[in-house]
Amino acid sequence: MIYEIAELYIKPEDHAAFQAGVSKALPLFKRAKGCLSLRLERGIEQENTYHLVIGWDTLENHTVDFRESADFQEWRALVGGHFAAPPKVEHFDTVIAGF
Amino acid sequence: MIYEIAELYIKPEDHAAFQAGVSKALPLFKRAKGCLSLRLERGIEQENTYHLVIGWDTLENHTVDFRESADFQEWRALVGGHFAAPPKVEHFDTVIAGF
Repeated sequence: MIYEIAELYIKPEDHAAFQAGVSKALPLFKRAKGCLSLRLERGIEQENTYHLVIGWDTLENHTVDFRESADFQEWRALVGGHFAAPPKVEHFDTVIAGF
Repeated sequence: MIYEIAELYIKPEDHAAFQAGVSKALPLFKRAKGCLSLRLERGIEQENTYHLVIGWDTLENHTVDFRESADFQEWRALVGGHFAAPPKVEHFDTVIAGF
């Protein structure tokens, strides 16, 4: 399992609409191949910045299966208009599960 | 509950020692007031970058209680020598728990 961390920069006036778009998009991720979990976090120091944290079974489940799907286009249609800048997307492997 | 995300930049030759330091430090966090969870993630695209993801009951449990404790000094003694640059630390609130 890997984590996608998408850093999203949202227009100050669009927070409610953006959050509603993410809620509406949950079924797209729930049915995406290899998508295991999703959480949306908002920055405390940088309040126009969010982390969308998505667990995927494999890297390719995100970069190939999801990004090449029609659901990816629907996801972007739901939230892309609220972006103040292009998202920064990175992937991470858990190396210490801790507690 | 809030999440602390510490972005840590590690010297290329120090990965094993850094990871061992984090493992050794787990008891410090387990006993820290309000510390609920800890996970260490390593970047796939940026392999010298880690995210230390720590759940705290309140922001102050991290910024005051932990940072002013002797255990914080011990934590930095265990891992600080492996940093290639100063950490970038931010805090996030979960706004959509998702699935």
